[in-house]
Amino acid sequence: MTMKIITLLTDFGSFYPAQMKGVILSRLKEKGGARAKDGIIFVDITHDIPPQDVRAGAFALLSSVRSFPSGTIHIAVVDPGVGTSRAGLVVESGGQLFVGPDNGLLLPAAKALGVPRAHRIACSFEASNTFHGRDIFAPVAALLAEVSSPASIGPRMRPKDLAFGEARKTEGGIEATIIYVDRFGNLILNLRKLPAFDVRLKGIRLKKARTYAEGHRIEPLIILGSHGFAEIAVNQGSAAEAFRLKAQDRIELEEI
Amino acid sequence: MTMKIITLLTDFGSFYPAQMKGVILSRLKEKGGARAKDGIIFVDITHDIPPQDVRAGAFALLSSVRSFPSGTIHIAVVDPGVGTSRAGLVVESGGQLFVGPDNGLLLPAAKALGVPRAHRIACSFEASNTFHGRDIFAPVAALLAEVSSPASIGPRMRPKDLAFGEARKTEGGIEATIIYVDRFGNLILNLRKLPAFDVRLKGIRLKKARTYAEGHRIEPLIILGSHGFAEIAVNQGSAAEAFRLKAQDRIELEEI
Amino acid sequence: MTMKIITLLTDFGSFYPAQMKGVILSRLKEKGGARAKDGIIFVDITHDIPPQDVRAGAFALLSSVRSFPSGTIHIAVVDPGVGTSRAGLVVESGGQLFVGPDNGLLLPAAKALGVPRAHRIACSFEASNTFHGRDIFAPVAALLAEVSSPASIGPRMRPKDLAFGEARKTEGGIEATIIYVDRFGNLILNLRKLPAFDVRLKGIRLKKARTYAEGHRIEPLIILGSHGFAEIAVNQGSAAEAFRLKAQDRIELEEI
Repeated sequence: MTMKIITLLTDFGSFYPAQMKGVILSRLKEKGGARAKDGIIFVDITHDIPPQDVRAGAFALLSSVRSFPSGTIHIAVVDPGVGTSRAGLVVESGGQLFVGPDNGLLLPAAKALGVPRAHRIACSFEASNTFHGRDIFAPVAALLAEVSSPASIGPRMRPKDLAFGEARKTEGGIEATIIYVDRFGNLILNLRKLPAFDVRLKGIRLKKARTYAEGHRIEPLIILGSHGFAEIAVNQGSAAEAFRLKAQDRIELEEI
Repeated sequence: MTMKIITLLTDFGSFYPAQMKGVILSRLKEKGGARAKDGIIFVDITHDIPPQDVRAGAFALLSSVRSFPSGTIHIAVVDPGVGTSRAGLVVESGGQLFVGPDNGLLLPAAKALGVPRAHRIACSFEASNTFHGRDIFAPVAALLAEVSSPASIGPRMRPKDLAFGEARKTEGGIEATIIYVDRFGNLILNLRKLPAFDVRLKGIRLKKARTYAEGHRIEPLIILGSHGFAEIAVNQGSAAEAFRLKAQDRIELEEI
Repeated sequence: MTMKIITLLTDFGSFYPAQMKGVILSRLKEKGGARAKDGIIFVDITHDIPPQDVRAGAFALLSSVRSFPSGTIHIAVVDPGVGTSRAGLVVESGGQLFVGPDNGLLLPAAKALGVPRAHRIACSFEASNTFHGRDIFAPVAALLAEVSSPASIGPRMRPKDLAFGEARKTEGGIEATIIYVDRFGNLILNLRKLPAFDVRLKGIRLKKARTYAEGHRIEPLIILGSHGFAEIAVNQGSAAEAFRLKAQDRIELEEI
């Protein structure tokens, strides 16, 4: 594939991500290098991250990167600290490149691919104080699309990390945190395998299942999701609504 | 056009569709064949199908495929039965290819283009039980992008069909079903032409119109939509709200 | 860059924009010209403009076009008058091309790039009365992608304009209108610089800030946005919710 793949993940909703793409295309056209000729393919991972929810963004990026080939450039911007002194980063890991703010957003994904090497963005741009996605991260991605070398962007630095925490065994069962709620209302937990024992949530038994369709209609399930985390689902319904739970909530899975 | 067109239609909302694109790009890059060189263009038809609403997905696909050229590959995944024994399909019709679950989703679109020829997906993949879009349908689409031959995917089979039903003449008028409600609140009916007579819905006269702008502000209209189905609209308003109706509701259009 | 860039901005939500892309790809493929070979890159600016809100669409287009390179073709469709006698337009300005209805939607963006030259779409198409995006504007964009000459589309005409109005100084402060509310609940005003004095909105002081992160949590700010308009924001909150304001509302910024 001679086309360069650039993904975008933000909490911007619409029209700001298009401006980032426009800037990348403008820069590549100006330069008229090889990349400009071979073309770019943009893939929007999501722009619907809840506003300023860095952990949700980190999860969406983490669960997506293994699907992409070596050479992919990911721009991710969930950035409550835009315009402050927080640094901008380029991280290389497992042959993929990540561009975004130094607030932990990029790290879980980068660590899933290998040992991350982070560089501080040291090149200077004419930047607004409110939209670094367009004014800094997009131009950096355009540069990387040409040269592929994070070392040209700035010196090595130690990036901020972000942990989802790990669910822990308690006397009565498992204490876990909800990392993410997807469009189906499935509750994704910081738990990397199904419990060895049967569990209840808020007094209701969760059936251990392999597929969403396994339960009766509206029966709650616990399932190992395609992203490698356990999730609570309701067949043909929403677990978030049924249990009145949301991202960041702590839950107790009681051993039966 | 040497670029290969691949469309995606799902009920996934965001970030899962990007993983399907990542898998396709990874596979093509690995193979390094001609297609990898010529490039891919992805077109998202929609990822906002109401969760698990196979009929709404089938309608969105049906109303879109005639706009695409021969050679297009459509991946469609609205799949309440994922991980069960339901088959995966490749359907060829009128020079376009469809990939998705065997639950009727692909059939109305395929039949609109010609006589569908369906093949069961028989190649084996390392698949999760919950995300066949990424683990089976995306790799199959990548394979089709290279070889274009559904016969290489598996043997012929008879696919499940799905019918929207046909509105029917009654003594007092027409009985119809709402197939789809679009973003404007327009109610799309399983009725392929405007009634020959004037009609009322819930006691309110529907003006037969050629354009949405024809009515007074908030006047209800019945119009032949661009997709070839009759729809009920409210000029500068939402018919779904005005009449408190939703997809799958049956309605009675009374002859005046 | 030999790929042609085509952007799309509509109030269609999903699946209708994909049909416009399908039509463009079909036309280019049929012709088999140079463009078909070099490829197209689509950029979705947004499809979430509030239904039929021409001013919101004009703002989103205006704030996006400066990010795109010369040669870009923008198709914009927010079109309450579809199917009536309102004309279709191609506008050239600053090396970019705009295609859409003659209702003011295209003009603020075109004027931001230079002196617009408008042409009436005079070529005839087999068009539905309800979906000119697919039946007229998409084929015109495909034509422009090949020939790049608006003169081939139709004669020069004088297009309808649209103004956001200008905030004005009053005795007690500044009277402004909200042009747009973005996903974060930021209120974008028709005011091109920050007030020279301190101001209150509904009795609450707005801190003049350079970045969203400058305020305390939930402190209201007034900031010069990346689009060049002043906006009212709430650090880690929604100004639209806090002040109960929406697009098109007039507000009074009281001088303190």
